[in-house]
Amino acid sequence: MQPINTREYLEKLEAAIEEQNVAFIRESMEDVHPADISQVLDELNTPQSKYVIDLLPPEVSAEILSNLDEETTRRFLRVFESAEIAALVPYMDSDDAADLLDHQPVRFREEVIALIDDRETAEHIIELLHYDEDCAGGLMAKELIKAYDTWNVVQTIEEIRRQAENVEKIHTIYVVDSQERLLGKVSIKRILLAKANTRIADIFDRDLISVESYRDKEEVSDLMQKYDLEAIPVVNIQNRLLGRITIDDIVDVITEKAEEDIAAMSGISAGAEEDDGVFRSVRARLPWLLIGMAGGLIGAQLMGLFEGDLKEITALALFTPLITATGGNVGIQNSTVVVQSLGRDVFSGNKRTEKIIRALGIAVVNAITISLIVFVFFLLYGRPFGLALVVSIALFSVVILASITGTVTPLVLDRYGVNPALASGPFITTANDLLGLTVYFSVAHWLRPLLASGPF
Amino acid sequence: MQPINTREYLEKLEAAIEEQNVAFIRESMEDVHPADISQVLDELNTPQSKYVIDLLPPEVSAEILSNLDEETTRRFLRVFESAEIAALVPYMDSDDAADLLDHQPVRFREEVIALIDDRETAEHIIELLHYDEDCAGGLMAKELIKAYDTWNVVQTIEEIRRQAENVEKIHTIYVVDSQERLLGKVSIKRILLAKANTRIADIFDRDLISVESYRDKEEVSDLMQKYDLEAIPVVNIQNRLLGRITIDDIVDVITEKAEEDIAAMSGISAGAEEDDGVFRSVRARLPWLLIGMAGGLIGAQLMGLFEGDLKEITALALFTPLITATGGNVGIQNSTVVVQSLGRDVFSGNKRTEKIIRALGIAVVNAITISLIVFVFFLLYGRPFGLALVVSIALFSVVILASITGTVTPLVLDRYGVNPALASGPFITTANDLLGLTVYFSVAHWLRPLLASGPF
Repeated sequence: MQPINTREYLEKLEAAIEEQNVAFIRESMEDVHPADISQVLDELNTPQSKYVIDLLPPEVSAEILSNLDEETTRRFLRVFESAEIAALVPYMDSDDAADLLDHQPVRFREEVIALIDDRETAEHIIELLHYDEDCAGGLMAKELIKAYDTWNVVQTIEEIRRQAENVEKIHTIYVVDSQERLLGKVSIKRILLAKANTRIADIFDRDLISVESYRDKEEVSDLMQKYDLEAIPVVNIQNRLLGRITIDDIVDVITEKAEEDIAAMSGISAGAEEDDGVFRSVRARLPWLLIGMAGGLIGAQLMGLFEGDLKEITALALFTPLITATGGNVGIQNSTVVVQSLGRDVFSGNKRTEKIIRALGIAVVNAITISLIVFVFFLLYGRPFGLALVVSIALFSVVILASITGTVTPLVLDRYGVNPALASGPFITTANDLLGLTVYFSVAHWLRPLLASGPF
Repeated sequence: MQPINTREYLEKLEAAIEEQNVAFIRESMEDVHPADISQVLDELNTPQSKYVIDLLPPEVSAEILSNLDEETTRRFLRVFESAEIAALVPYMDSDDAADLLDHQPVRFREEVIALIDDRETAEHIIELLHYDEDCAGGLMAKELIKAYDTWNVVQTIEEIRRQAENVEKIHTIYVVDSQERLLGKVSIKRILLAKANTRIADIFDRDLISVESYRDKEEVSDLMQKYDLEAIPVVNIQNRLLGRITIDDIVDVITEKAEEDIAAMSGISAGAEEDDGVFRSVRARLPWLLIGMAGGLIGAQLMGLFEGDLKEITALALFTPLITATGGNVGIQNSTVVVQSLGRDVFSGNKRTEKIIRALGIAVVNAITISLIVFVFFLLYGRPFGLALVVSIALFSVVILASITGTVTPLVLDRYGVNPALASGPFITTANDLLGLTVYFSVAHWLRPLLASGPF
């Protein structure tokens, strides 16, 4: 079997599609993992991909469709008939099927659901479509194995056998009462070790962490990470078992959250992808650049107020980039450290003051070091004493102030439910630029008598 | 049972430790999940934590010690006797025990290993300590269930029973030959469905993704994410089964990687923690600030070359923050998008040119928009035509150039094996600042005849 993730194979595949060489396509993709096929399809255009998918066994096609990103799904589904999708749904997990249909036009969605043969599957999908995609209900799958507390071990093994085809990964058997209320869990290990007539009620474990369907997906992710869970049952408000979330879905949540934070820090709106067209990319990025631009224009206004000083002591202008860059760097360092600690620490709410004091301590050391270095450098370099003093004092103040804004901003954003990572983004750098300029020129204005004596 | 994650409980606990109120501590922590106890211990000092840990059942203490971060481990282990640790090791997974001992002084490590009663456990730990912590071998645990291909179902179930105590989560049964070479897997579901005398050789699945022990942990993480694996077997170069890695360890790898990238973007050296002392924090942050400072001083030199122009047309100085901020923002946007796409796309190596062209397209649209807005704004605001032209041309060029450097830098870093996220950090903003200043003042110098006619 040749590796299919090569440019060479891709060219052969494109030729094969062109020539409708069905044998080559089928043979070369036999026994290849759907995830690898997906990567190849990503390089093809939609009609080419569709052609390939139609040739694959339905379980492979279903797996490929289950793992597409939102944008590719939209693009792909336009070329599929509703009956084609309905035929693949039985091969998908209920949560993947619901995700696939979630952003489709209502009519298409209804058609697909109506065409699904198995009514239980259809009902599961209808139920899952009710939930918001950002909550536990939107993440869960209906596939799970449950046992009633009144059953014995043999009955439970029967149920596992019955469900074996639908439930790919078993993890844990959930124990419910006659009202479907979640009572606890029993591991498959325990079942294997118990005698055939042992009652589930006698061996199940009541210690079980579950999550309500309305909880935010990041809460679910935190819970599963904290308690090292591989699956978590989802219940409704009456504690009825609705479904379960597995760790692989949480891995996606964690990855998305990290990408979201990094995008926020970089001034890129959420959901932007590298493959987006130019227009979509501009829409995700330009607004943030405009914030920076507005800041720059306000900064010019601000410096304009000191134009008299600038005219007389031109050298002042030379150090504005030093001041603004330092303020920006310090601000981002502080906000990032705070952002990373938020949510990780349950007691953080009580520690705001402590955080600010620690940040201040670090700021003072950094501020003294940087301003001292610059001061000495200026004198060695033969710059006038007055200018050295002004720049050093301004640098010192900017480092302290930027540490405070960098620490406080994410705390405030978080308190008001805004993603604190935004505090490390262009908004804060712009604000810090303005702060830095104000401080710098105020200090210069205030110490102008000292400056005027210099050679500039 | 009262919740223990409250400030109130913490105060009660501290009082109880003070008064040696063993009953309160034991009762209040009974049935509390070790992860919750860990969070509380995080708020105590080391002697207090040690006092509490000594009172807990060994399986709970072991679990708590298994999940500490590196820094806390170092701090904690100083107050533990090697015999105390050796007594807890049997309650830990082999990978957690090895991690715990990994950064300890050799003597302490040897003592603990010598004091472990169970020699198999001790040998497992010695083996795991050989591996670098950043490779697959360093992540794996020895606990797994394997079956020889010559066994039948009954023998395999016997083995599961035998191992049940050691292997917390079963996932999959690995099938090996008489030389311990990995042949494939068989699911516990399959075992349950098969007849007692069925031979494993007849039901096992040869399709199995495994990983060599020397692979980098991020490679393992990518593999497990790509193929949605919950566990992956680790083999040596002869394909002998050594251990397995479970998804919960990979969740930690993903989280760490994201934090590392964010830290790199923010100019904080790897491994810095919010709780670090002031000195450690300064060490992680100051070097990056000094890079920015050096950049600022070089920028001043650079602008100094144009001091003649600046003296004559002071208004030029007002727009340096606009130019540098825009260049910085554009550079970070571009590098972040490239960083996020790297590694996600197997064909990315072949797409460098395509990436750069797409980035250029976006840059042109953003550049035209921003420079036009600024140009119109200047004229409306009554700024001289010459200045409007200079600033707009400079902005346009800076957006284009910063897009190119932002796109190319991470690609170059990645090619040379450096974390490309550094490209979104202070180094690139500093470089972009200098680039922006050079362009701006060069344009101004070149168009000086136009500028001189203005009111400034």
